[in-house]
Parts: sequence; structure tokens; C-alpha cells
Amino acid sequence: MRNYLSISDIDSLPDWVAAARDLKKNPRKFDSLGKGKTIGLLFFNNSLRTRLSTQKAAMNLGMEVMVMNFGSEGWALEYGDGTIMDQGTSEHIKEAAQVVSQYCDIIAIRAFAGLKDRKIDEAEQVLNGFKQYASVPIVNMESSVGHPLQALADAITLAEQNAKKRPKVVLSWAPHPKALPHAVANSFIEMMQLQEADFVITHPEGYELNPEITKSVRIEHDQKKALENADFVYVKNWCSYSHYGKILGQETDWMMTNEKLGHAKFMHCLPVRRNVVVEDAVLDSERSLVIEQANNRTYAAQVVLKKLLEN
Amino acid sequence: MRNYLSISDIDSLPDWVAAARDLKKNPRKFDSLGKGKTIGLLFFNNSLRTRLSTQKAAMNLGMEVMVMNFGSEGWALEYGDGTIMDQGTSEHIKEAAQVVSQYCDIIAIRAFAGLKDRKIDEAEQVLNGFKQYASVPIVNMESSVGHPLQALADAITLAEQNAKKRPKVVLSWAPHPKALPHAVANSFIEMMQLQEADFVITHPEGYELNPEITKSVRIEHDQKKALENADFVYVKNWCSYSHYGKILGQETDWMMTNEKLGHAKFMHCLPVRRNVVVEDAVLDSERSLVIEQANNRTYAAQVVLKKLLEN
Amino acid sequence: MRNYLSISDIDSLPDWVAAARDLKKNPRKFDSLGKGKTIGLLFFNNSLRTRLSTQKAAMNLGMEVMVMNFGSEGWALEYGDGTIMDQGTSEHIKEAAQVVSQYCDIIAIRAFAGLKDRKIDEAEQVLNGFKQYASVPIVNMESSVGHPLQALADAITLAEQNAKKRPKVVLSWAPHPKALPHAVANSFIEMMQLQEADFVITHPEGYELNPEITKSVRIEHDQKKALENADFVYVKNWCSYSHYGKILGQETDWMMTNEKLGHAKFMHCLPVRRNVVVEDAVLDSERSLVIEQANNRTYAAQVVLKKLLEN
Repeated sequence: MRNYLSISDIDSLPDWVAAARDLKKNPRKFDSLGKGKTIGLLFFNNSLRTRLSTQKAAMNLGMEVMVMNFGSEGWALEYGDGTIMDQGTSEHIKEAAQVVSQYCDIIAIRAFAGLKDRKIDEAEQVLNGFKQYASVPIVNMESSVGHPLQALADAITLAEQNAKKRPKVVLSWAPHPKALPHAVANSFIEMMQLQEADFVITHPEGYELNPEITKSVRIEHDQKKALENADFVYVKNWCSYSHYGKILGQETDWMMTNEKLGHAKFMHCLPVRRNVVVEDAVLDSERSLVIEQANNRTYAAQVVLKKLLEN
Repeated sequence: MRNYLSISDIDSLPDWVAAARDLKKNPRKFDSLGKGKTIGLLFFNNSLRTRLSTQKAAMNLGMEVMVMNFGSEGWALEYGDGTIMDQGTSEHIKEAAQVVSQYCDIIAIRAFAGLKDRKIDEAEQVLNGFKQYASVPIVNMESSVGHPLQALADAITLAEQNAKKRPKVVLSWAPHPKALPHAVANSFIEMMQLQEADFVITHPEGYELNPEITKSVRIEHDQKKALENADFVYVKNWCSYSHYGKILGQETDWMMTNEKLGHAKFMHCLPVRRNVVVEDAVLDSERSLVIEQANNRTYAAQVVLKKLLEN
Repeated sequence: MRNYLSISDIDSLPDWVAAARDLKKNPRKFDSLGKGKTIGLLFFNNSLRTRLSTQKAAMNLGMEVMVMNFGSEGWALEYGDGTIMDQGTSEHIKEAAQVVSQYCDIIAIRAFAGLKDRKIDEAEQVLNGFKQYASVPIVNMESSVGHPLQALADAITLAEQNAKKRPKVVLSWAPHPKALPHAVANSFIEMMQLQEADFVITHPEGYELNPEITKSVRIEHDQKKALENADFVYVKNWCSYSHYGKILGQETDWMMTNEKLGHAKFMHCLPVRRNVVVEDAVLDSERSLVIEQANNRTYAAQVVLKKLLEN
């Protein structure tokens, strides 16, 4: 593995999940592996879980960590080829990526979708720019179209909580006052396609995700039908993909409730808006796995960094 | 001790001061105590001394440190119970506190008073929210109503500088162009009530502090009378408590001067506005203890973290 | 050496360059030298290379690092003597410098020129304020009038790339849409005066730098003539010094091109505006040394910190 940019960089999901669960039992076991190695965490957007869990994972491996809010602490980056840079951008991604590579053994990057232009978002200019020009491995800490550290943590959580050979897992769209990216849903779907499961996506019509990602996964517009006999329900909002970046309607009746959930376990990547995305009663119940998902972010990041360090 | 939230969490002030003074002599003596342990410093407000001294204290104990400007780098927090979160807040304190607990062995928090609504400030929603929902110890790095790391550093400084059995210590209000919180004054007063001292508070009428904190401490509105034969004068501005958050008048004649100070030592928590709160001649004299107070912030934090790690 | 404030703090440039090149071969050789020592990096302005390379250098020496964006995370500083601080500034440099000295063994500072008032900029109030009041060594991470860590990295790069006894080195002014400080040019010129070289400065009339810095260095206003037979061309924009802080004209024909460069190697401190300061073809060629200059920032900083720690 050269980089960890998307779920497709995982060669064997069961092996990675097993390795992460081993690390969770003894997080400091490999604390000399990263000695003298440095990771740079570059944030172009806000972060809580990713910021802290990736730092923690790196420190567990004995690495040194440099955190930088690239947007506010560095220089505005240019991505275009051949641009005459006489406007607002001061530094080209070509230089930035090569320069950071001089100081870091691994570079991790968070750069969200702008949700204004699908082509621009799908070009992943920040992540792909670093991938193209950096001379060290790149880790995706959530890009325009994917959040593979989150999906790997979700796979760990599912493995810990699931007792069935083929559990039913439902990804259920939720209402939200702001237009949110597709990254978490995309990576969760890609990850689920590597699992033995009865996997269903449910959302109101108009919220279809990129068909190149959902592929042949069953899509059921009737939420009630989709949730029948579910073992795990992953709830997440995303904005429209076809009417790119738009909210089509409030659809407040899509909020997850205890009643809808039935006997299933509840999952969400956080942050979550209470009583909009999901009611308090679910989050405050024993069936909510959200804190354990957050905990597993450390071990997801740690297994990725460990593999990159061992390469 | 489960947390360090206020002066009342100190079981024996003389023992803690003695332990801090021992640490000061050999700051790295316990540098393996915190090995593999992580502290998260969460700032909802600006900080210089607290930011650097708490980091330094943690590093002296061998801890790993993650610093986060929660307000600008994370998500806007919701504190209400049962709120429908369809407005500006993205994440509930319930999740945030539990999540940060997954990555940190100790969480330290700075969240100032808003000075608009006394009830809201006294509810200490940030500090108490973390206390209620976190699963690891919480340290107060200045909250709405207290700054117990500062007061502990002040106790260390007094112990170092005092030769008398019962010194006279005066807390003297000072003028200031902006409305400032009561936190430093409150914790200093609470700390002084654990000391053998002739302790007097002096301030213009209208600047009475919360009577549940000042209790039976002598309040003298005549500054000159209060300062007579003082050994230590702690100068600090605070806004009105009864007319909550207001500045009642300029009262520039309350500025501390060399002449008023007499033979006493001068103390202030910093930052201090020169020639408004206190004249240059005092700060630039040998009788000023402000830099040593700042130095002792490290050992105050270190004794607190050491006790939390040992628990 | 008490501080590293300017090129004049280098006692022997050849020795320092040799020491830096040794460190580059084995960066962790002295990783116990800084054990238990702390460096504080205080940023009053944005930074990418300096931020990461100075951290990296300190960590290579085993130091602990505290990074602080002083402007946004701390308090607004006052520099005036005797000021009545009843306006926007909350803390005096006298206290700030002494306080930070309590927590750090070395303090490194970045504070750019404001480019509004030459006298204010040349007074270097931030850097000189810390120098005057701090009790620990100060390192200049780019001040109003100098960037000696950059110039030291440039000296390392020249030493690595030069095969001649007396190479021809040209500092060539470049166009830029914004007024930029003189710091990089100043320190490069001062450093070149410690080298055996045929050193020429070329710029349009009106862009003369401070004559106390350029001294007797040859200034050639005809760029073509200046570049004849050059071995190294250092390109950099700066604003007018005599019409302080002004851009006098666009002068777009001063952009560096492959054709102008001839067989010379290209140098720039970065960030660089492509196709404004220099055309793509130069930056993307083998003759560009900009990434190696950035790499050498680590070893420039490391040799400075090593010398300060050994003192």
C-alpha cells in the first residue's frame, strides 16, 4: 500500500479489522515502530474526532506529530496547471506537497467537498494534488468523496458487535438543516461491499448517491420496509447528488426513532444533531454504538499508519 | 480526587503546596509517571500562561499533549437537554465529552464567563457538561466562576515569599476598561480561606463579589485603610456581580501605586494593563511577584496532574 | 552565541554550513541533547516551511515543542514604554517575554514587517522586545528586516550545489501583485557577504534596498547584463524601500524564465507565485533548487538550536 486514500486501498478487510482489534488490546505494543518518524496532519476543515484520534494513533506508534490548520496558518493554495498566479493564491500544490514531504514521513489531509461543483469535488484537487506531488504516503482524513478512516472504524465496530454470519445492515438517510457531503456514506457503502451482509440503503427519492459507488446495492425508498429485521442501522444525512449540493425538502419524518429502530444497533459517525437526525432516546440507549465507533477511530488510524510505517 | 474543578477539590493546601515546591526543585523527577498517557487541552477562549504552563507540566510528567482550540477547530456545542438541534450547534456536549474521553486520560478545559447572564455563567455549562459526561478526570483551566490553577500557583508563591505566621494579605480591586470575570478573584478568596492570614478584600461599593464565596471575609471599602501594614497585595479587576457584567464607573484612583503599596509585595495573575491596573514603578520593582506567580503555574498544574495520574 | 537574530550572529559561516551538512547525514545523532528542554514557537504571522521545519529540527534534537499562534490564541501585546494601557492591548511585551521564558528554554518568533512605517519596522519591536526582556535565547523565524534561518538554509544549498571557487550568484528582483517585505533579500545579501562569490543584485530602479545592508555589493539595473554567466540566480520580490512599502509598477518583464536563466541554478525561498515571479518551465526543471532549499531549512534550524543548547 502506497497511500490510504479510499476503501479500495484495503487489501483484506478481515485482516485489517483483526489487526486493529489486536492493537486495541495493546495500543502501545508497537510504540517503537514510529520512533524518529513524523506525521503531518493538515486540516483544511474543522475536525474533532479525526484530529484527536489520528494524533493518538500516531503517538501510540511512537511517532512525532505536527498538526497544522493549513487554511488559516499557511498560504492559500493554487491547484491549476499553468495558472498565472497573480490573484488570491500564494503557493502552488506542486511546491506545497513536495515541501511538506521534506519534513514528514506520512502526510494526512482533511479537505471537504465544497458542494458547489460536482466536477471540482470529484477531482479531489487537494488530496490528489498531494498524492501526485508528495514523495511520502498520503492518508485521507476525509476528502470530498470519501472518509475511509471512518468506514474502517465502522468495520471494526461491526465486527465487535455482530454475532451473525450475515447481519442485516441498513444505511438510512436522515434530515439535516445544512447540506452535507457524501463522503461518509460513500466510504461506508464501499466498505460494506467487502463484507458478508444483507446491506440495504434507504433514502427519499432524489437522494440517490453516485451510482458508480452504490453499484448493485439494494435501494429501498420505503424506510419502514428497509428497516425490517435490521441488525445495524447506520444513520447519516447527505445532500442531493443529482441536484448537486442541494437540500430537496425537510423530510423530518425520516428522523431515526427508538420505535423505527426496533432491536437493531444504532450507528452514526458524529457529530450528530439530536432530535433532528435521531431522537435522544436512541442516542441515550444501550443500542447506540456511536461512542465505540469514535473509540475505534484510533485503532483504524493506527492500523493504517502501522502498515504505512512497515512498508 | 476525581477532578480538579475548584479550590474545594484540594484536600490539604499545605500538602499540595509542599508537593509543588518539591516538583519545582526537580521538575522531571516523575517523568515516567505519565508515559503512554495523554492530556487533551481544550480551549474555548484565548490563553498564554495556562496554555504553555499546563503543556509544560504535562510534558514534565512524561505525558503526551493534544491542544485544541475547540471553538475554532471543532464543532459548535449544544448544552440543552432535549433540544431539537436544527440551529447553529452541530454537536451535543453529551457526545463531545464521551468522545474526547476515548482519546485522553485527562481533559483540561478553559471556558470563560460570558458576563451576560449570571445564571448561565454560574451553571458552568462547559465545565459541568464535561464533568457530567466525560469518563476521565477534568481539570479547570479557568471557568466562568473559578480559576483554581491560578489560585494554587498563588498559594505556592505566598508560601515561598512569606516569613510570617499570619501575614496580612489584601485583595485590592483595580480599574479596567473592559468588564472582566470574577473567576480569579473567587478562587483566590476561596484559597485564602484555607490559609492562616489576616485577609482583607477592598473594592469600591457596588463591586461586592458573590457573598457565598466571600463569606465572612472582611470587606473594607476604604482602600487606604485596607492596605495598612499589608504584606501582600493581590490586585485584580472584576466587573459588578450585582449589576452582573457591568462596569459601574472608571474609579481610576484605585490603580495600585508604589506609594499605596508601601512595603508589601505585589501580586497579579497577568495579563495586566500597565498604568491602568498598576503603575510601571510597581511592576518594574523587586516587590513584584508576577513573574514568579507565572512560573509557579507550571508546578501548580503539575501537582494536580500528578495526583490525577496517581489515582 | 546568545541569540540567533540575524546573520551577524554566525561566527563562522563555513563551520555552520559544515555542521548542518553533518546533521543532514544523521539528523537524530544528537537526539538526547534536547531531552527535557522545551522550545516555544510563537507565530505572529502565517507560516508553512518555518513552522514545520523548526518543529522538525527541535524534535530531531529530542526537544519538546510548544507551538502558539500568538496573535489569535494569546493577548494583543503592547510595546510602548510608559503607555497607559486603556486601549486595545492587554499585555505588555515586558511581562509576555519574561513569562514565556518561564516555560521555554528557547523562544522562536515570527513577526513580519507591517510595511506601513519604516521606522516602526526597523525597530523590530516584537523580536527586540523578546530579546530585551526574555531570559532565554531568542531565534528569529523571520522578522521585519531579516530571515536568517532562510539565508542559512540557502548557504547550505549553495555549498551542496557549487563546484567553483568563486561562483557567480545573482539576486534578481521579481514582480509580485502584493507588496512584500525585504527580510529574505536582506538576510541573503548579508549571508552572501560572508561568502567567496561574484555577487550581483539586479532590480528595476526604485527598488534599491537599505544601503546599510547592500553596502558595496554591485547593483546592476540591467537584468540581462546581471544574469550573464550566472551560476546561481536567487529570485525574490520586494517592495520599494525608499517609497516604503509601495509597489512602483508591474514590471512583468522581470519574471524569471528558462531563457534568461541560461545554465544557472534557480533559487527561491517559497512560497512562489508561478508564472508571475518565475515561469513553470524553470520550477519544473532540474535546475530548480527550491525543494532542496526547503529541505535544508530543517538543518539550518537544527544547527542553530544545537548551538544554543550547547551553550
